[in-house]
Amino acid sequence: MNEFDLIARLTRALPTNESVVTGAGDDCAVLDLGVPDQLILFKTDAVVEGIHFTRATAPEKIGRKALARCLSDMAAMAGTPTAALVTIALPEKFDAEFVAKIYAGLTRLAGETGIAVVGGETTTNPERLLISIALLGTVPRGKQILRRGAKIGDAIFVTGELGGSRAEKHLEFEPRLAEARWLADHFSIHAMLDLSDGLAGDLRHILRASAVGAEILQAAVPVSRAAKLAARESGQSPFVAALTDGEDFELLFTLARQDAVQLLDAWKPQFPKLKLSCIGKIVAGDGLMIRGQRGPHPFAAGGYEHFSAKTG
Amino acid sequence: MNEFDLIARLTRALPTNESVVTGAGDDCAVLDLGVPDQLILFKTDAVVEGIHFTRATAPEKIGRKALARCLSDMAAMAGTPTAALVTIALPEKFDAEFVAKIYAGLTRLAGETGIAVVGGETTTNPERLLISIALLGTVPRGKQILRRGAKIGDAIFVTGELGGSRAEKHLEFEPRLAEARWLADHFSIHAMLDLSDGLAGDLRHILRASAVGAEILQAAVPVSRAAKLAARESGQSPFVAALTDGEDFELLFTLARQDAVQLLDAWKPQFPKLKLSCIGKIVAGDGLMIRGQRGPHPFAAGGYEHFSAKTG
Repeated sequence: MNEFDLIARLTRALPTNESVVTGAGDDCAVLDLGVPDQLILFKTDAVVEGIHFTRATAPEKIGRKALARCLSDMAAMAGTPTAALVTIALPEKFDAEFVAKIYAGLTRLAGETGIAVVGGETTTNPERLLISIALLGTVPRGKQILRRGAKIGDAIFVTGELGGSRAEKHLEFEPRLAEARWLADHFSIHAMLDLSDGLAGDLRHILRASAVGAEILQAAVPVSRAAKLAARESGQSPFVAALTDGEDFELLFTLARQDAVQLLDAWKPQFPKLKLSCIGKIVAGDGLMIRGQRGPHPFAAGGYEHFSAKTG
Repeated sequence: MNEFDLIARLTRALPTNESVVTGAGDDCAVLDLGVPDQLILFKTDAVVEGIHFTRATAPEKIGRKALARCLSDMAAMAGTPTAALVTIALPEKFDAEFVAKIYAGLTRLAGETGIAVVGGETTTNPERLLISIALLGTVPRGKQILRRGAKIGDAIFVTGELGGSRAEKHLEFEPRLAEARWLADHFSIHAMLDLSDGLAGDLRHILRASAVGAEILQAAVPVSRAAKLAARESGQSPFVAALTDGEDFELLFTLARQDAVQLLDAWKPQFPKLKLSCIGKIVAGDGLMIRGQRGPHPFAAGGYEHFSAKTG
């Protein structure tokens, strides 16, 4: 049983109530708490030493990453983050300076993003540092974008460039909050998520939730320079890296094909520094096909399958 | 530097915004997200193997405790919990049955309390199990009860019996949600918290936040049978155990002295199975005095000072 099987089992019959708009299974939970024009977004995400960072990672970057990952999930719903709680589990003989620097990196990003840090907890985890962030945000009613809305014929888009994030980007990425809100405000986005487990694996979440398939055009996938550099050393394909490396934290979304050109035209003056690529289309069926020089073939390799998966 | 010093340092200058009613430093954060008649309560709490439970603890009880601790904090604000996210960090070679039983204990309590479990995350913590709960709730505007409102002359009350929780109660306690809401609805409660670190330590949180002192009547403190049994074996004073043992998860609160008799009269028919004790009074000054048979003396020993402290 891997993490996805376990989560599927655990979340099969969770208790619910009338506040729940969208429960487990998307980037954030969506709740209706009675704000007249807004829904509430609710999310947690944890980073663990040895998995998401190492003992050599600068503490400011650890703190920043812990919050940024949660922000990326809120971006994936086209939401606006409001307030965060910070849980830090650390060895008993901790270095107070180190912990203060984790907080410094985290609170700097919070300040830049307008988020209040309203408390949290320190507790003990003797062997390694673990940070869990709980994040609250809002989204205008009806503007939340789920994973399950992709339709046959949709164009598939991705922001930025993919692969090779482990070299540097996983510690320095910018959550695409403004871009996602702009998309939700100006276009009818059918499905969206943020890339955390790799394009191939994450796209499958959209496909399963929407009961559709996808065809990706190999030449259209934006492969990062970091993925190309890493490929030169490892001898692996940079395209496969772009499809399967984790922690890109870019937006992956679909919208009706007839809106695609208008989107590309409007995007460029709005976000001149961030690439937007149309990489394929939603098709009938249930798998992921890659269209390369020698025609289409199924892509079987999954995304980045560590034991760390988000359920809500 | 202990946990309280660290937290004081970390929370000195946190980023804030206009949604924050009460940030770090109380049982829950209080937010105004625009619900007409309600404020939002936001809380996280973690339990860690070897600290809050052992490898021998029944998994259903671990899951129940993880959520119940958070509920107790929401009770301390007189709030109503709405939705929870569950983060489980566990060794890579996990036992799926064990994890399912943790969820079973947790979701049973959630169902009984009307709380939706709206997702969460599983991640890796190779050496030990760690569960962190994020909880959202609501409280009618103006009805939230903070730690900082105690006034000189107030009577100090505590629910239940104190001490010896480690024997059994820490896994089976009932969060005092209904009791706290009834108190807030019917009386002007000045300050309240839930006892997690022991009466002496937790009362000091109220005293510091309210800039007052307290005098506790030794004979009035309700000492649990478990504390008396443990004292018989250890030779320690059961009274000291009642003041310093952790994880009682009872309510500690103050209200004006003139309301005290009316409260005791109204409580008994409402909650016939739960003891309510007036244990002392708020006085000028800043310390905790104990009035025993030989007159008053200062109580210096703190509460249960493990490295696990709540900040919000």
